Amino acid sequence: MIALPVIVPSMQTAAGEEPVHVVGVAELTGFAAGVMARVGCAPDIAAEIAQHLVAADLRGVESHGVMRLTQYARMADTGYLDAGARPSAARNAAGRLVVDGNGGFGHPALGLGTRLAVEECGEAGMSVVLVQNCGHTGRIGTYSETAAAAGMFSMICGGGMRLRWRQVAPHGGIDPKLPTNPYSFGFPAGEDGPVIADFATGMVSGGKVMNARVRGMQLDGEYLLTADGAPSADPGAYLDGGAIRPFAGARGYGMGLMAEIVASALMGTDTVEGNWLIMLVDTACYRAPEAVVATVAEILDDVRSSRPAPGFDRVEIPGQREHALAEQRRRDGIPIPESVWTGLVELHARLDGHEPRHHPQRQ
Amino acid sequence: MIALPVIVPSMQTAAGEEPVHVVGVAELTGFAAGVMARVGCAPDIAAEIAQHLVAADLRGVESHGVMRLTQYARMADTGYLDAGARPSAARNAAGRLVVDGNGGFGHPALGLGTRLAVEECGEAGMSVVLVQNCGHTGRIGTYSETAAAAGMFSMICGGGMRLRWRQVAPHGGIDPKLPTNPYSFGFPAGEDGPVIADFATGMVSGGKVMNARVRGMQLDGEYLLTADGAPSADPGAYLDGGAIRPFAGARGYGMGLMAEIVASALMGTDTVEGNWLIMLVDTACYRAPEAVVATVAEILDDVRSSRPAPGFDRVEIPGQREHALAEQRRRDGIPIPESVWTGLVELHARLDGHEPRHHPQRQ
Repeated sequence: MIALPVIVPSMQTAAGEEPVHVVGVAELTGFAAGVMARVGCAPDIAAEIAQHLVAADLRGVESHGVMRLTQYARMADTGYLDAGARPSAARNAAGRLVVDGNGGFGHPALGLGTRLAVEECGEAGMSVVLVQNCGHTGRIGTYSETAAAAGMFSMICGGGMRLRWRQVAPHGGIDPKLPTNPYSFGFPAGEDGPVIADFATGMVSGGKVMNARVRGMQLDGEYLLTADGAPSADPGAYLDGGAIRPFAGARGYGMGLMAEIVASALMGTDTVEGNWLIMLVDTACYRAPEAVVATVAEILDDVRSSRPAPGFDRVEIPGQREHALAEQRRRDGIPIPESVWTGLVELHARLDGHEPRHHPQRQ
Repeated sequence: MIALPVIVPSMQTAAGEEPVHVVGVAELTGFAAGVMARVGCAPDIAAEIAQHLVAADLRGVESHGVMRLTQYARMADTGYLDAGARPSAARNAAGRLVVDGNGGFGHPALGLGTRLAVEECGEAGMSVVLVQNCGHTGRIGTYSETAAAAGMFSMICGGGMRLRWRQVAPHGGIDPKLPTNPYSFGFPAGEDGPVIADFATGMVSGGKVMNARVRGMQLDGEYLLTADGAPSADPGAYLDGGAIRPFAGARGYGMGLMAEIVASALMGTDTVEGNWLIMLVDTACYRAPEAVVATVAEILDDVRSSRPAPGFDRVEIPGQREHALAEQRRRDGIPIPESVWTGLVELHARLDGHEPRHHPQRQ
């Protein structure tokens, strides 16, 4: 039994801000992989999930980074999902690609689905892959980044989680009915990284509410409803029978409901948590890669030339701030807030020395 | 030369509201087809556009209904587009379906693209069709309704219009850079009609701003920016060098930018107005139609069971209010507001007795 690695990070503080522990990418990935293996994942799957989480932290998407490890360990512990599961792929009777997560974590399932979709799209110019019966998939922008690296436009959305996660109220209503049904759109661009627009269809993602609660903070807007339907910025109000509000009223509600329908109606509702749709288009079927990237650059330059709004330094391109931050953090290390760090240290203490857990594979 | 039909509608007024003229569907369609033929469309294309506009009015989407006729006549008159053009379809070198609007109105081009996509999707289980080089396409939810009637999920989005239509400011900026880049998502459902979520990526569509201006009204929220970047509800502020704000900040901006990129980078920017992406998935490739519809019904019933928010009677399903309204208006006629009616009467007077105009076809 190999002990989990112990990380001794440097600590930084800034006036008025929570102290952070700065950890190198390799160390943090090794730690996360150790945790995931300890909770029951096969080594390759543990490594895939660890890389996924650290990639989110690299990009500043803390809500989908290593802070999730505590939740993931609990999901495995309680049998909410089967950490030992391995996704499988098949063509259904109609010849369409379907990946079954077999009740395990969603990252390897959506990762496999994306790789197969890229392969099919490379041959056919387009691809649709459905992924069913899996748990949390992490930050879905990751999968659009994979598609963009292959020169492909992607739209990915997920649903079916409402049976376990009732989080978002419909437009015109106050009861939580839908999960946060996220979407990710990605398109290849030049050196500054692909354009990635990924977001939940609530005013705020469940992950950000959870992050605010862990850190004892209020949200920066009234994105929530109390149990009585009053707007609120307090994570506690949501966790106490309230709801997340859909973004832009009918628009976020429409998109969230659509994702819930797509995922549930196409795959059925027998799932550990949710199902996913991956749609890709190969840009190379339409114009030469240089022409594609040149047009994208022209549009991005034009948009960036807008005068900034009050409170903004400049107009940014979705996905490219994350891309630049990742380059910087690969060099300088990843800052983990004190409150998240404390949770990881506790998790480490609990798991260290324990044998990996195994749960029976679901049929 | 046959005279344009003269409509003698009944007139209704309600206290505090603008008087309306109530017109039958057949009469209004005949009038609109007459106008479109008079401005240079071939009879079948004139009829297709007329049906499209009246279908929008039937569904209460006045901003995309017959009020557009005045604008369309001007577009043909000024040579902005070629009313006499007919769309054509071909498979490109990579074997992908591309429709060329040939510089004409967008309705027949996107209509043809949707019919071809439905055909390809019926065979392959999925379809991607690009439509390039066309003018205004009307209400794009219409095309998702066509796909849904064939049992197909659709995502449709359009872009490339920024060269002519700079309307929406990027998130974090104040200058109008992007068009309103709309999306439409559709999914088949039961008797109450398909679920259709279609919207522009600005806080408000250009059509609604135009409609408010025609009717001398303010918008019901500060969806606009003045030329100096101050939030405003006044259509005049927008038309005087201002901008529409993106919905939900970074989310609407991300989706709008993505649609602009997809349409421009895949098809190039040589277009009369814009290009479109149609993506379909055949639900029948995954589950039996009854199972699909049953799951959708279960989700819709659940969402509808939410307690209503203050100011709402009940939670509605996107697309289904429009579906019910269309049934009622097919029986009772379509109310056209006085201010819109006046414009149509003027248009009639101007065009009646004129020969149809013809503009040279673009290469």
